[in-house]
Amino acid sequence: MPPINLGLVGFGKIARDQHLPAIAANSGYRLVGIADPHSRLDGVAHHASLKAMLDATPALDAVAICTPTHLRHSQARLALEHGKHVLLEKPPGATLSEVDELSDLAERRQLTLFAAWHSRFAPGVAQARQWLAGREIRAVEIEWKEDARVWHPGQTWIWEPGGMGVFDPGINALSLATEILPRPFFLRSANLAVPSNCQTPIAADLAFSDVQETPIRAAFDFRQTGPQTWDIHVDTEAGRLSLTQGGRRLSIDGRVELEAEEREYPGLYARFAELVAGRTSDVDVAPLRHVADAFLLGRRKRVAAYVE
Amino acid sequence: MPPINLGLVGFGKIARDQHLPAIAANSGYRLVGIADPHSRLDGVAHHASLKAMLDATPALDAVAICTPTHLRHSQARLALEHGKHVLLEKPPGATLSEVDELSDLAERRQLTLFAAWHSRFAPGVAQARQWLAGREIRAVEIEWKEDARVWHPGQTWIWEPGGMGVFDPGINALSLATEILPRPFFLRSANLAVPSNCQTPIAADLAFSDVQETPIRAAFDFRQTGPQTWDIHVDTEAGRLSLTQGGRRLSIDGRVELEAEEREYPGLYARFAELVAGRTSDVDVAPLRHVADAFLLGRRKRVAAYVE
Repeated sequence: MPPINLGLVGFGKIARDQHLPAIAANSGYRLVGIADPHSRLDGVAHHASLKAMLDATPALDAVAICTPTHLRHSQARLALEHGKHVLLEKPPGATLSEVDELSDLAERRQLTLFAAWHSRFAPGVAQARQWLAGREIRAVEIEWKEDARVWHPGQTWIWEPGGMGVFDPGINALSLATEILPRPFFLRSANLAVPSNCQTPIAADLAFSDVQETPIRAAFDFRQTGPQTWDIHVDTEAGRLSLTQGGRRLSIDGRVELEAEEREYPGLYARFAELVAGRTSDVDVAPLRHVADAFLLGRRKRVAAYVE
Repeated sequence: MPPINLGLVGFGKIARDQHLPAIAANSGYRLVGIADPHSRLDGVAHHASLKAMLDATPALDAVAICTPTHLRHSQARLALEHGKHVLLEKPPGATLSEVDELSDLAERRQLTLFAAWHSRFAPGVAQARQWLAGREIRAVEIEWKEDARVWHPGQTWIWEPGGMGVFDPGINALSLATEILPRPFFLRSANLAVPSNCQTPIAADLAFSDVQETPIRAAFDFRQTGPQTWDIHVDTEAGRLSLTQGGRRLSIDGRVELEAEEREYPGLYARFAELVAGRTSDVDVAPLRHVADAFLLGRRKRVAAYVE
């Protein structure tokens, strides 16, 4: 099978730090162009826009969309209309409605659309999912607490409408929980702490349950100083599973079962290649839907202004 | 075909005012029970809960769920698990995730699930949809302005999380727009006016567009005194279509094409009978998804406290 001729659309931090090395390390891809109005990379054809890249690169097979969220829909649509397979960085869109429409378009055109959730490719995820399948789940605790000043300096868009605030990292936790838990779950109530000078929450407490009334609690907080926490704990009849460090470490009752280096994006690109080979799609909107549900159903409380 | 043995779950205002007369007027239904912890109706078997109705009524074929929104998921699920067809009042759930799960359950059980949007059965809707199909749509204006003090006195839940505020009537406009316009559309930006003592918006300005960049604007307002407005105007190359009075009147370029008495619920129950006969479902979450998108993407502005 010849390599997939891939173009990158949007060449910001995530594209440089994660997409580029993952593509370079996978012989199944050939990076044939980068479309970005500002950034370029030596040795790779540069285009000011996706349209320009499409016109100049007839051999293009697929694109990875790494633009700001509000541009993903128009860019993905343009690529699909030109018969290209599409990988969408997370979140897959600014709204659920636009993702739904893209999904229909990809299906009509028999093209691959991949709504990528990078956290799902963390080392401990597959084993956690397997271990939990068929177990009796008694309670779930999700704790996702990080310091916005350390991890998101200068990212003012996070605090604007659509930026999702603490749900920008929190959606990663939701992408893990929806992947490893054996049953779907639903939001029952939520408290959102919104700084007086921001549009989006700096912290959120979410109470979910599944159809067996299993309590599933999530605490997201952007104000965490000291140790940072990206952990999910699941109590079962056979013990407590802990998927910690964002999915890098898996423990059962405190005994480490697996611990490995983070290599999410290589896994993500391996999956995309499989999908393209089979001309199938993978568009699971569940994590973004939970975020939208939290904004719809959450009780907002004003808290102290956020000053970076 | 024998009549459908129907039970009502939740016997509040909407069930009395709308469901009851529509069921009574349709020989395809026999009302065999009402489940409500408080309300009852002379001449119809009363049950304190859906569970009690299911136990006492083996001949029950289907239920209409008219409970408060946050109870719909558990009640609908219980009915489907007992092999009953389900009609859901609008909105079909408190969250999108729970509606999605119900939809999967109905499909697995080969039962009918009907997420009913009553406004879609207004007299002018079918003709509006037909007239617009294939036309070039240039602009859409949706104006849904009513006086909350007149139409929703004492309904404090509207201002609480999940109550949706002005989107409680606004979702009817969205159910019409998604029904009559030939293409899906997406929210681009939104301004939400939230009273300082409320959790939900009292007014909303929404800017949507479709894939042809057609501007679709919606203005919802709960502070309308004087004439009340429930109108949609669509400019096309062949003139301006106006669907007004909540769908009761259809005009083209100001010439009235159709005007009729409101009989939404009879239409809704006729449709449910068709679905049950074919054991098919009709679960279009688009209107609720647009509301969730507006909460996710909207810019909130505090406005004067709402005092009834």
